[in-house]
Amino acid sequence: MDIAAYVDQLTARARTAARSLAVAGTAKKNAALGFIADGLLASAAALKAENRKDLDAARAAGLSPAMIDRLTLDDKGIAKMAAAVREIIALPDPVGEVIDGWVRPNGLRLERVRVPLGVVAMIYESRPNVTTDAGALCLKSGNASILRGGKEAINSNIAVYRVVADALAKAGLDRNCIQLVETTDREVVAKLLKAQGRVDVVIPRGGKGLIRNVVENSTIPVIKHYEGICHVYVDEGADLDMARSICFNAKVQRPGVCNAMETMLVHAAEAKAFLPAIVADLLKAGCEVRGCPRSRVACPAIAADATEEDWRTEYLDLILSVKVADSLDEAIGHINTYGSQHTDSIVTRSLARADEFVARVDSACVFVNCSTRLSDGGEFGLGAEIGISTERLHARGPMGLRELTCYKWIARGNGQIRT
Amino acid sequence: MDIAAYVDQLTARARTAARSLAVAGTAKKNAALGFIADGLLASAAALKAENRKDLDAARAAGLSPAMIDRLTLDDKGIAKMAAAVREIIALPDPVGEVIDGWVRPNGLRLERVRVPLGVVAMIYESRPNVTTDAGALCLKSGNASILRGGKEAINSNIAVYRVVADALAKAGLDRNCIQLVETTDREVVAKLLKAQGRVDVVIPRGGKGLIRNVVENSTIPVIKHYEGICHVYVDEGADLDMARSICFNAKVQRPGVCNAMETMLVHAAEAKAFLPAIVADLLKAGCEVRGCPRSRVACPAIAADATEEDWRTEYLDLILSVKVADSLDEAIGHINTYGSQHTDSIVTRSLARADEFVARVDSACVFVNCSTRLSDGGEFGLGAEIGISTERLHARGPMGLRELTCYKWIARGNGQIRT
Repeated sequence: MDIAAYVDQLTARARTAARSLAVAGTAKKNAALGFIADGLLASAAALKAENRKDLDAARAAGLSPAMIDRLTLDDKGIAKMAAAVREIIALPDPVGEVIDGWVRPNGLRLERVRVPLGVVAMIYESRPNVTTDAGALCLKSGNASILRGGKEAINSNIAVYRVVADALAKAGLDRNCIQLVETTDREVVAKLLKAQGRVDVVIPRGGKGLIRNVVENSTIPVIKHYEGICHVYVDEGADLDMARSICFNAKVQRPGVCNAMETMLVHAAEAKAFLPAIVADLLKAGCEVRGCPRSRVACPAIAADATEEDWRTEYLDLILSVKVADSLDEAIGHINTYGSQHTDSIVTRSLARADEFVARVDSACVFVNCSTRLSDGGEFGLGAEIGISTERLHARGPMGLRELTCYKWIARGNGQIRT
Repeated sequence: MDIAAYVDQLTARARTAARSLAVAGTAKKNAALGFIADGLLASAAALKAENRKDLDAARAAGLSPAMIDRLTLDDKGIAKMAAAVREIIALPDPVGEVIDGWVRPNGLRLERVRVPLGVVAMIYESRPNVTTDAGALCLKSGNASILRGGKEAINSNIAVYRVVADALAKAGLDRNCIQLVETTDREVVAKLLKAQGRVDVVIPRGGKGLIRNVVENSTIPVIKHYEGICHVYVDEGADLDMARSICFNAKVQRPGVCNAMETMLVHAAEAKAFLPAIVADLLKAGCEVRGCPRSRVACPAIAADATEEDWRTEYLDLILSVKVADSLDEAIGHINTYGSQHTDSIVTRSLARADEFVARVDSACVFVNCSTRLSDGGEFGLGAEIGISTERLHARGPMGLRELTCYKWIARGNGQIRT
């Protein structure tokens, strides 16, 4: 297979499809999404049969139970995929929104109008549901997508893609509005990441290794988040019941995700009053707690030391590091030094310190008196999200449909020239 | 010199400065800008003396008169630099703007607030005025900047930077809010382009070679425009007097810039009525005209053929290529195939065709009945611009202060957790 020619064709088709999709209108895009959802349910048997091939190969290759779990497509999973696509039908179409506009002294009427980004390349790992989730979000926002899933899910992804392509055709859309890379040759990724002018943005989803590879090799803008090292800071004078509820939720409610708390910071004045209660809650929930020396003095139930390495670690697990801080300034310094600019929260009664925290913590999401777990497109009211960005360009935090668009300038005149 | 250590220090200082600058407030930033403007005028003699060293070296190296002209700092040029910095004082500060916000059903109050991007690296060529222009725009928008000018202007840039650093200090700002790379070692650029997490965006300004080098070697997002291959399409039934005025202005008013017209498209029905008059105007203005075969039949004064290469060329000169199109569809196809997604304009009386042109032309700026030369931050009312983006992510078209910012999410609650 000539990979260079394959990627040329893939990206040229995507650009052509993107131009027609940009003006296709909401009704056609929603119709296609409906057909995708219908098709997934109607093809459940075929999807499961193809998925079985991937599962057999995964077991033969000795993949971990967690990976096999993520790879499995059963009836419940297929129903969830269809429901997720249907949810996107209900979301408002961002394309065509007039962001702002004004009239210049020479009478020129200016408008900034929301338009799709163009061609989005998604590079992801084992979950086959990303194929429909990402494809559907890109479609609704008017972007052509090139989907490159993991090799361990190739048979499942190809089967899912048959449904997607048929649905696009049935809705009267170019089937290249969504394309799947049907070869597992890694050279395709290398070539896609260099396809400047053909691919407009790359969105990697998966482990750190995958994301680092994409960032280091891409000459195209990448929207990503490496990790979420999220903090909650319990301020001097905070409502300690509220703090206990927020910290417990932030750590325990779902520890394996990027918006879970990894480090809890506590003002020195509250350490003795606060730590024993919350640490007891956490230990009871099966959480391992590692603390700085002062936290261990205030709360002897913290049985292990937190090291420098702990402050930099995204556990994604029932493990928490705890640090006592002497001031808001020290807490902010810790967060800006060791955090990942994802989501950080303060629990406080002080307006001045809430304002200072919000202004100085340099993260995509900065919270006052609520759990870091609320950092999510659905919780924010954006609808389904394509991911969370810790980038500083274009979009920060949860990315919904609107964040998959940019704008064009339109100027309407009656003969204006430059003088 | 240990370049890796130098770039580490440069970028670490920039990040620290960026965090203080983000919360410094408008008054301090404006004070610094005022001191820069004052300092430039007060230091004119020193600036000219240092500039003379660069000019002597440039002449010895046989640089072209155009390059020497761009490099020259005289009293008029210094006054212009100071005036440009003062203009930025008058522009509104984009930092802190509440972009939008709402309340969630659980009572969580959300806001998106405009914040600086962080650390901006500017890579540019000979003009020493970019040092103050770019530094001032980044400063006003709250971004720390790392400025890397061309080696041919190194003495001038160092002298200008002394004024800048003194002004920052005098205003009580970290002098590392604006840093100049004071070595001409090219390895600095290579290292800056790989400084992910330390530099947030790279903005190259200069020739195509410089921009291509930056794009191909950067693992950090780049905002750039390669070139402007701008079109004017004269539609069937257009007001031909208006078309003549717009096309003449778009080509002749300042041919050396990116928003000048390079190709004029004319509907077949108007070729005979329109081409002889506008071509006569252009020839009289010293413009060379190259046309497709049909344009040469309609207007024998077009003495040369336009080749495939012409459609892809940004002349930046008094040269124009002309093509007759049979339909709006053909014109749009030509623009989307050969254009550079910068600025394209239609002259028409038809509402339907204006709407179709605006929807389907895939460019940063799409105009109706006005000159492409109006594609400019000043003309749009954005104030001074850092450049024009033909990117599709973050910002398209003229980039002012607002386009040098992103946003953070702020959520304020009273104990909300995820359920």
